[in-house]
Amino acid sequence: MSKNVISKLPVMLHGADYNPEQWLDMPEILERDIELMKKAGVNCVSVGIFSWVSLEPEEGVYTFDWLENVINRLYVNGIYTVLATPTGAKPSWMAKKYPEILRVESNRVRNLQGGRHNHCYTSPVYREKTRLINTELAKRFANHPAVILWHVSNEIQGECHCELCQAEFRKWLKKKYRTLDNLNKQWWTCFWSHTYTDWEEIESPAPHGEPCIHGLNLDWKRFCTEQTVDFYKEEIKPLKEANPDIPATINMMAYYDGIDYWKFAEVLDIISWDSYPMWHNGGTDDSGGAIWNAFWHDAMRSMKQQPFLLMENTPSTANWCGVSRHKRPGMNLLTAIQAIAHGSNSCQYFQWRQSRGSVEKFHSAVVGHNGSDKSRIFLEICKTGDALRKLDGVLTADVNAQVAIIYDVENKWAVEDSKGPRNEGMGYTDQILQTYGSFWKQGIPVDVINMDADLEKYRLVCVPMPYMLRGDFAARLKKYVEKGGTAVVTYFCGMVNENDLCYLGETPAEGISDMLGVVFEDIDGLYDYQRNHVVFDSESGLEGEYETSKLCEIVTVKTAEVLGKYKEDFYAGYPAFTVNNYGKGKAYYQATVMNGEFSDKFYKKLCGELRIRRSLETDLPQGVTAGRRMTENGTEYIFIENFVNETREIDLPYPLYDIISGKTISGRTVLEPYAAMVCK
Amino acid sequence: MSKNVISKLPVMLHGADYNPEQWLDMPEILERDIELMKKAGVNCVSVGIFSWVSLEPEEGVYTFDWLENVINRLYVNGIYTVLATPTGAKPSWMAKKYPEILRVESNRVRNLQGGRHNHCYTSPVYREKTRLINTELAKRFANHPAVILWHVSNEIQGECHCELCQAEFRKWLKKKYRTLDNLNKQWWTCFWSHTYTDWEEIESPAPHGEPCIHGLNLDWKRFCTEQTVDFYKEEIKPLKEANPDIPATINMMAYYDGIDYWKFAEVLDIISWDSYPMWHNGGTDDSGGAIWNAFWHDAMRSMKQQPFLLMENTPSTANWCGVSRHKRPGMNLLTAIQAIAHGSNSCQYFQWRQSRGSVEKFHSAVVGHNGSDKSRIFLEICKTGDALRKLDGVLTADVNAQVAIIYDVENKWAVEDSKGPRNEGMGYTDQILQTYGSFWKQGIPVDVINMDADLEKYRLVCVPMPYMLRGDFAARLKKYVEKGGTAVVTYFCGMVNENDLCYLGETPAEGISDMLGVVFEDIDGLYDYQRNHVVFDSESGLEGEYETSKLCEIVTVKTAEVLGKYKEDFYAGYPAFTVNNYGKGKAYYQATVMNGEFSDKFYKKLCGELRIRRSLETDLPQGVTAGRRMTENGTEYIFIENFVNETREIDLPYPLYDIISGKTISGRTVLEPYAAMVCK
Amino acid sequence: MSKNVISKLPVMLHGADYNPEQWLDMPEILERDIELMKKAGVNCVSVGIFSWVSLEPEEGVYTFDWLENVINRLYVNGIYTVLATPTGAKPSWMAKKYPEILRVESNRVRNLQGGRHNHCYTSPVYREKTRLINTELAKRFANHPAVILWHVSNEIQGECHCELCQAEFRKWLKKKYRTLDNLNKQWWTCFWSHTYTDWEEIESPAPHGEPCIHGLNLDWKRFCTEQTVDFYKEEIKPLKEANPDIPATINMMAYYDGIDYWKFAEVLDIISWDSYPMWHNGGTDDSGGAIWNAFWHDAMRSMKQQPFLLMENTPSTANWCGVSRHKRPGMNLLTAIQAIAHGSNSCQYFQWRQSRGSVEKFHSAVVGHNGSDKSRIFLEICKTGDALRKLDGVLTADVNAQVAIIYDVENKWAVEDSKGPRNEGMGYTDQILQTYGSFWKQGIPVDVINMDADLEKYRLVCVPMPYMLRGDFAARLKKYVEKGGTAVVTYFCGMVNENDLCYLGETPAEGISDMLGVVFEDIDGLYDYQRNHVVFDSESGLEGEYETSKLCEIVTVKTAEVLGKYKEDFYAGYPAFTVNNYGKGKAYYQATVMNGEFSDKFYKKLCGELRIRRSLETDLPQGVTAGRRMTENGTEYIFIENFVNETREIDLPYPLYDIISGKTISGRTVLEPYAAMVCK
Repeated sequence: MSKNVISKLPVMLHGADYNPEQWLDMPEILERDIELMKKAGVNCVSVGIFSWVSLEPEEGVYTFDWLENVINRLYVNGIYTVLATPTGAKPSWMAKKYPEILRVESNRVRNLQGGRHNHCYTSPVYREKTRLINTELAKRFANHPAVILWHVSNEIQGECHCELCQAEFRKWLKKKYRTLDNLNKQWWTCFWSHTYTDWEEIESPAPHGEPCIHGLNLDWKRFCTEQTVDFYKEEIKPLKEANPDIPATINMMAYYDGIDYWKFAEVLDIISWDSYPMWHNGGTDDSGGAIWNAFWHDAMRSMKQQPFLLMENTPSTANWCGVSRHKRPGMNLLTAIQAIAHGSNSCQYFQWRQSRGSVEKFHSAVVGHNGSDKSRIFLEICKTGDALRKLDGVLTADVNAQVAIIYDVENKWAVEDSKGPRNEGMGYTDQILQTYGSFWKQGIPVDVINMDADLEKYRLVCVPMPYMLRGDFAARLKKYVEKGGTAVVTYFCGMVNENDLCYLGETPAEGISDMLGVVFEDIDGLYDYQRNHVVFDSESGLEGEYETSKLCEIVTVKTAEVLGKYKEDFYAGYPAFTVNNYGKGKAYYQATVMNGEFSDKFYKKLCGELRIRRSLETDLPQGVTAGRRMTENGTEYIFIENFVNETREIDLPYPLYDIISGKTISGRTVLEPYAAMVCK
Repeated sequence: MSKNVISKLPVMLHGADYNPEQWLDMPEILERDIELMKKAGVNCVSVGIFSWVSLEPEEGVYTFDWLENVINRLYVNGIYTVLATPTGAKPSWMAKKYPEILRVESNRVRNLQGGRHNHCYTSPVYREKTRLINTELAKRFANHPAVILWHVSNEIQGECHCELCQAEFRKWLKKKYRTLDNLNKQWWTCFWSHTYTDWEEIESPAPHGEPCIHGLNLDWKRFCTEQTVDFYKEEIKPLKEANPDIPATINMMAYYDGIDYWKFAEVLDIISWDSYPMWHNGGTDDSGGAIWNAFWHDAMRSMKQQPFLLMENTPSTANWCGVSRHKRPGMNLLTAIQAIAHGSNSCQYFQWRQSRGSVEKFHSAVVGHNGSDKSRIFLEICKTGDALRKLDGVLTADVNAQVAIIYDVENKWAVEDSKGPRNEGMGYTDQILQTYGSFWKQGIPVDVINMDADLEKYRLVCVPMPYMLRGDFAARLKKYVEKGGTAVVTYFCGMVNENDLCYLGETPAEGISDMLGVVFEDIDGLYDYQRNHVVFDSESGLEGEYETSKLCEIVTVKTAEVLGKYKEDFYAGYPAFTVNNYGKGKAYYQATVMNGEFSDKFYKKLCGELRIRRSLETDLPQGVTAGRRMTENGTEYIFIENFVNETREIDLPYPLYDIISGKTISGRTVLEPYAAMVCK
Repeated sequence: MSKNVISKLPVMLHGADYNPEQWLDMPEILERDIELMKKAGVNCVSVGIFSWVSLEPEEGVYTFDWLENVINRLYVNGIYTVLATPTGAKPSWMAKKYPEILRVESNRVRNLQGGRHNHCYTSPVYREKTRLINTELAKRFANHPAVILWHVSNEIQGECHCELCQAEFRKWLKKKYRTLDNLNKQWWTCFWSHTYTDWEEIESPAPHGEPCIHGLNLDWKRFCTEQTVDFYKEEIKPLKEANPDIPATINMMAYYDGIDYWKFAEVLDIISWDSYPMWHNGGTDDSGGAIWNAFWHDAMRSMKQQPFLLMENTPSTANWCGVSRHKRPGMNLLTAIQAIAHGSNSCQYFQWRQSRGSVEKFHSAVVGHNGSDKSRIFLEICKTGDALRKLDGVLTADVNAQVAIIYDVENKWAVEDSKGPRNEGMGYTDQILQTYGSFWKQGIPVDVINMDADLEKYRLVCVPMPYMLRGDFAARLKKYVEKGGTAVVTYFCGMVNENDLCYLGETPAEGISDMLGVVFEDIDGLYDYQRNHVVFDSESGLEGEYETSKLCEIVTVKTAEVLGKYKEDFYAGYPAFTVNNYGKGKAYYQATVMNGEFSDKFYKKLCGELRIRRSLETDLPQGVTAGRRMTENGTEYIFIENFVNETREIDLPYPLYDIISGKTISGRTVLEPYAAMVCK
């Protein structure tokens, strides 16, 4: 399927996870829910998540009538179904009868039944059970007009270390390395006498076994990703056989990096995710959470370069957090609009109705335990429903970012496992969010891509900490600059190959050194309380002195121009920030962890020079951002978002029509706290 | 037995845990100890704790002569014996021969022999071994005139997850729920497909299995309590058969909440506990520790509504603390008097003589390793012995509190496992201690009762965080207010039933909402560093603005009068403190975590209005409290306690005679640092 | 062998760990390395560490040619070999074939293959495999002229709890205690019914078994030490049989105290260790790290009272630290000179060349991944190589300390396991380092010895926290003072025997109380934020008031003179610092944790009184120290070290010739940051 898949979804989706199987003995609940859904502008719910025991209460006995009734009742009331496969949580009877399906943790202890995502992705028994239930589900519902999307399993996660998985892992390694000699070289097992002389000697990483062969650690994570993807591919087979036209998705988690989601992107029809920033955890300013959230929205959109679905966010609180902090008034609409601004074609909640018991009973829901349609939360959701109804025109609009930031999860794994130069925290994500934030504050759309993505279409590519040079990324980056692109690359660059094997000779390796015009000499770690400074002179256009911390790389210049130099320590005077002409393009190098003040100043200057278009051609006040989506026929939607619990004023460069309020605004305009606008 | 049991104990007990089996090869130690005990005014020691291997060094071979000799020698010297059963620590030979008696932790790994309370309460073997040793003990000692009390096991604790316990647990569940369907509904297992379809699928909570079904967690704790109580009941059978007139107790621990001690109270003749506050862990003021300790004394007295025994406290330091801080001069007598003021008929120490080796060798004892009777600690104990000799008149005196605070351990389990609104700490105990402290500072006696207790006799009942409404508590509370009582109820009220299943519809449930005149809307969590304020106007009599934190409930008013309102945030203006007329009584509702300043002010005002009698009708200075016990014939004992390492002055409303010093005091009176007085 | 062994090593060694087996497929690397070694003044490398799988890739198949070639190539280029036995890390094939060799942790779970030092020291299989490989190694290399030292295993560590070890442990206990009755008494097992009635009941300490019998804990550590030493003795047999003249060493770790290295000292020919202070973890002053490092150098020298080898230190960063902080310019030479000043006859690095992969790939090396001989690190090593070439004269020079500090690892185990008076930290090492630092700041050489060492030759013996009186230490200490020696003893003194069994009666026990003239009464623990003060009057020569913390002992005086008294708390006025004349000597007693200001002042005064010679008769500025070594013929080498990243000035008492710079210095002399001088 193609980019068109998502735009074929009929409307801007508004809805929630819904578990009617919890209320089968109170049939009035379903009818009341439908009434409330209509009131709240809900047009779509996710049904069937973790419902296996309700669908197959004993082996081979399927009880689907309740589900069909629910789907039918919703449909005749105008509510679509996103239908889940139930495989994220298996019935107890299955665990009891087939203990092999229970997951084994890295300590090699098999779990008991319980929780969710507690199964082995390799187990032939579990795969067969999955095939059977999905075949039945598809038979019954794949051609039901209400069903618009398959929601496969849910929040897929974890890894299994059972003997079945060990055997598959060895097969996977044989395929990758062909010979043990090759594997031993790439993993550098000669160190500490770890050379394998028989494939059977290889075990997955274990706290009481082998935790420190980096190549093994990386390959294990890759294997787990591929094994999970393989399970997914088997899982959707019966669904696709029944009706190839229903798209399928999984619900990704930003906080989970155990899987390389980008490998999943290739096999999914639609990207969707659950968004849980820690709102209101400080004072009045929520731009920190907003930047984090915007970043992940962009990552999801960029995965398939098409609109995505916001599959979960909380109507107000998330009860698994340390503190259940309510979304402040306006925040629900604002976060829905934020998602749409970054490419979402939905705003879905976890959850529609609070469960009466168990571990998420106090997670906010659209409908609380009291069942009220007068609650503050319900009314906020209604307000959002009203707004979303007006935004169907956005569905086919694209973001068209001119800037890309490389976030590569395999590189993240490698950076965090690198052992030095800062085991107290390399700050990969911090550096990326700092860079991302400098664009967010300008209202400049950004694509968040990994090292496999195409670079050609961007005016600017930011490459924070590209420690590991996977695949042909180095070649493509050089080519991109050579042909006229601009790249900003940071410290901890080009040091290892995809198996975490260090490059010998000059680094940054694979010619990145030539592109940057600098050569790596060494890198110094700073304790959290230690600082250095970088001094830029007036010619740089960045005049001033900026605090640096954590990591200071020492580089020498080949061809680059030095813009900023270290002020202190034995590398005082050494270059800390450089730019190099390479082909028709330019490559900047940032050798140390600069502070946010510098980052904002630098990227503002650079975007100006590169004539990168802001969503709104005005300087935005602190905490406010703007986004943009444009249809193929040129209709432009401008999203204005105030993430501060205070009023803000902006100067509009031209009058705009706010679709949500139905008002035209112009000139100096006041934004209410947590205001959200969608303008044409 | 009845309330008279404890008052039949012959004297105000003063003594300690004593382990003469450690010194059998130094017979001079026993004689020296008796000499020193008499010097220190010791009239009673606990013997036989953890002595199993000394009593049965090989299977079926009993060696009781040493014990009989000790008991005899003590008795002829006027020292009673509290005789322990040895079952808290089994011999190694037993563990080796019968591995099934070793406990299995929640990770399903069987312990090795070691420590104490490391046995299975279910094991038929262990129960039989317990029966045999206790039968022999009773045969020999149950009719010995020295033996005044059975001290059963010691500091009973822990749980076992072995297969025998799993089977018993399932039996227990079948009895409680009758059908799986019923259990599944109450535990809401439908969530995450956890529905059980066979009883054999149920396992106790496990970190690598099922940790998050709240109903299961609660029932498991209830089962463990009942299994432990059942073990106790079997354990005392041979004791009672030999002589039904010797009462029995267990030694409870305030820091341990794994067992619902209130269930034990029903089967015990006498309540006793070990008191280990963290004295002197700050500056000069010890009122924090004093409030904690007083609270637990009151809880122990209230369990059976009769005097209790202070079974352990340290003569000076507790070596298992992070820091072994000595009791300052006077503190030992002060803490003895504090215990008696709150209903204790004893002051017992752990321990009489320091052991030479093992893990408690540096725990303070009356007699240290140097065996001296000149040590500061020994002299402090002598001083206490002298004082206690004068207090036999107090033995039959009651406290007669007019105020009750509900502390319910089952509710505590539920609150702390609730998952939201503050997983960083719900503060159940903090809220209770704050409330309790407001009475302590006024010198007002308080009963600490659980939800099963009778409410009728109190003028005021405080109900902090009654999240879970167990049994008929709600009905009794409403009836109590209706008939003219006053209740102060706080946030997080009436949300779940006894299986942690949320009430649907209006809450606080079961009519508590009517009683309070308010309806719960939602609850907001605050991070530790966030604050709100509540404003009371002048009509409330509490005029002012008070800081609140952690949890802010949003409620609406049905019939209540609003006394205080939130000042900030989106619920500014919402009621935060209300009062409602209900029947002939009044019900206050505190919707948020108020600060201590407010708590003290409010309860002072309220106690005045309700004409609740203070132990001493005067305003007490900071750190000083007063208690009261009264005999049936009207003799009143007033206890004055200064918990500050500074002198304090109080204005006595009338002259008092201090029994300890033998002096009459009146008018403005100076209290020395850590002074204690018992006045008539 | 004797003291002469080390001085027979041909030169001041300069070199590194070298792992050429990692580069066998790049033969040009070996030649390049030899070239670079010569440039860097390297004359000796450690080869073969953890190389087992390269030497025996399958069972019984030995592949030594590559090693012989390396040794030959090095030798013809003037580079000696320290040849390692490979037994620290076994091949995977061996673990797979003989699972019994895998270590079992205290939780009784057998490790998987992985890491290093993951074998059982008891296993007959592992001992046989070790014998076979070492026999082969010795056959081939024991008479090779290049091989000057056996480097046995590497960083020996850890313990195994397998059944084989349990059985050996029981045998060891039977030998020590003969009867169970004796063992039970010494371990005081009567406590908590832990009496053993069969040897088979005894198990090593376990978190889920018996963690709290202190005697068991101590004996287990002693057994592990002896079992490891026994393994070592078997391991070197084939080496010594082949050529008894090649000395053997192990590479000790200062951070590891699981083994009593002093027991190893007896069987080693040469002491060597790896030195990893945390340099530059604060501001400009590195004297904290310098004191720590100097202390350990002195401990290593004192073990056999002969020069030792610095076997490892980092050329710049250690990648296993939280932060990889580079050695600042000059620091490498300074740390080499520091080692030599304290008795080292070498400066060896970990590592010569950075490995390409695995867990230490970013540990600094003389040659980095880029292979450069222009790197800052390489040039620093060259500078050190140049300096060391001039220092062969120092090889036979001794330090001849007049002061000794007792650091006893068995006592440390006991102190830290004592349970009271401060489980939050007894501060044994802190107290020792504070004392040690007071000499370092004066430039006074110190021996660091354990309780078994001879005391007679010292003018001053410092005895911090001699909690456990092992062997005849008390008798020897008393005799030492009696005959005219001076001792400074601190709090927590003479409380238990070697099995952690408390002394009864007066303490400090075994007559130490007489020697000190004080009697222990009790000890008070202070929380981290609590303080007391000690006041000295003018007669003491230490006039002033000094802050104390953590532990305050209460003692009474028998014959001692009181120099300082507590100022606050209930022991105000009690002695806190005393001195006692005993025979012809004096014994000081420090009853509390004094601050550093006092320590420096006191020891300066005392050293003056005792006419203890400073290395340089001048007052040294902060951060600067001086050391001294003298040959038998009276040639004196003075080492001047500036551990501050600032210039310092000293006043030389007489002109000196700096061998390194070849310059004569005199009078007021400026020391550059991190300057190091070796003067005659």
